[in-house]
Amino acid sequence: MPHSPVLCTVDAVLLTLQQGALQVLLARRERAPFAGTWALPGGFIHPQEDADAQASALRVLQDKAGVRPPYLEQLATFSGPARDPRGWSLAVVYCALVPAERLQGLGDGVRLVNVDEVPALPFDHGAIVCQALERVRGKSQYSSLPVHLCGEQFTLPQLQAVYEAVLGEPLNKVSFRRKMDELAMLEPVPGALQGGGAHRPAQLYRLRPAFRRSLSLSPRGL
Amino acid sequence: MPHSPVLCTVDAVLLTLQQGALQVLLARRERAPFAGTWALPGGFIHPQEDADAQASALRVLQDKAGVRPPYLEQLATFSGPARDPRGWSLAVVYCALVPAERLQGLGDGVRLVNVDEVPALPFDHGAIVCQALERVRGKSQYSSLPVHLCGEQFTLPQLQAVYEAVLGEPLNKVSFRRKMDELAMLEPVPGALQGGGAHRPAQLYRLRPAFRRSLSLSPRGL
Repeated sequence: MPHSPVLCTVDAVLLTLQQGALQVLLARRERAPFAGTWALPGGFIHPQEDADAQASALRVLQDKAGVRPPYLEQLATFSGPARDPRGWSLAVVYCALVPAERLQGLGDGVRLVNVDEVPALPFDHGAIVCQALERVRGKSQYSSLPVHLCGEQFTLPQLQAVYEAVLGEPLNKVSFRRKMDELAMLEPVPGALQGGGAHRPAQLYRLRPAFRRSLSLSPRGL
Repeated sequence: MPHSPVLCTVDAVLLTLQQGALQVLLARRERAPFAGTWALPGGFIHPQEDADAQASALRVLQDKAGVRPPYLEQLATFSGPARDPRGWSLAVVYCALVPAERLQGLGDGVRLVNVDEVPALPFDHGAIVCQALERVRGKSQYSSLPVHLCGEQFTLPQLQAVYEAVLGEPLNKVSFRRKMDELAMLEPVPGALQGGGAHRPAQLYRLRPAFRRSLSLSPRGL
């Protein structure tokens, strides 16, 4: 049995939305290589401990940021001899979407930066962040993905604002609502209305349980 | 530096289309575990030799089947302690689409089976094949992906038949042609017409060079 000398790691691209801006979580590296620099949170797979690479990514996010993301999907695996100065390495990369309300009180070793203000990152982390944004924006065209950036309950105008922030463009209200109907992923929260004031109170919605772990996909984009 | 005991492998799901049926390539395993059984072609990553995991997959397909697929994309990475009896393992899985004309004269150790007649496979290869089909069918709804199952030149009715075989449903001719225009991935082969006979000769098309390695994506499905 050939024992492979490949370094097996995971990295996580954790995205959130604050004040209408998409943000990514960076962690300060405690160890070499690149000690002291900001990078994507990552670490080695621990075969004695981890049920699979996704479990490794969840462990890393818990350890480094104290966060357990409600939604996580595998982005891709990056590999080769040059991406890590320690040798031929492979990183299974996961993308996590987390509502901002779950990211209060982050510790010193982590911070959130706007995705269009990401500093130069070590390894191939810059390319990884680009690919994650491309995936999230692409999938947001035809799926329930952006809902995972919302809190538990939200109005349709709030949800539309989240889609617009992710896609980077305004959406037509009528076609947005038709699309939400087509995706059939929302349910009204019984008896829950928001606001009032000058406007008619707005119905609050939540994600249907079937779509907490898997996405609702539409055959046509927004 | 913790040397990880993770077994690092690649597997390939090579798909082709013959007589209107989608087929997957299986290879007879020469070595334990599961020696003699049919499985997806796969093997260890060779860090001394491979530029990345994709290069490993191309090497494995060349060695086992003598095929260099013109189109290959990463599907996902499968990992955990139970999928391989030798220990905690990780397989970076690639999906290849190859025109049938490139698969003539395959050797004894490989064969093509219809995707709805795949036998029980070792490891988690059954689940991997399912996920590959789901990906290919999903992406075919809104991209140029199925073109990679065609030969170099094809008529629009031939291409429509390929899309229909992959998607498993008939498509409306008018909306199919509108979709092809929208994808802007085809160019007529100058002066090349097919057939005649009872019908008007049909223009032959080919994929535009820009889309040989990357897909053309449509914001709306077929």
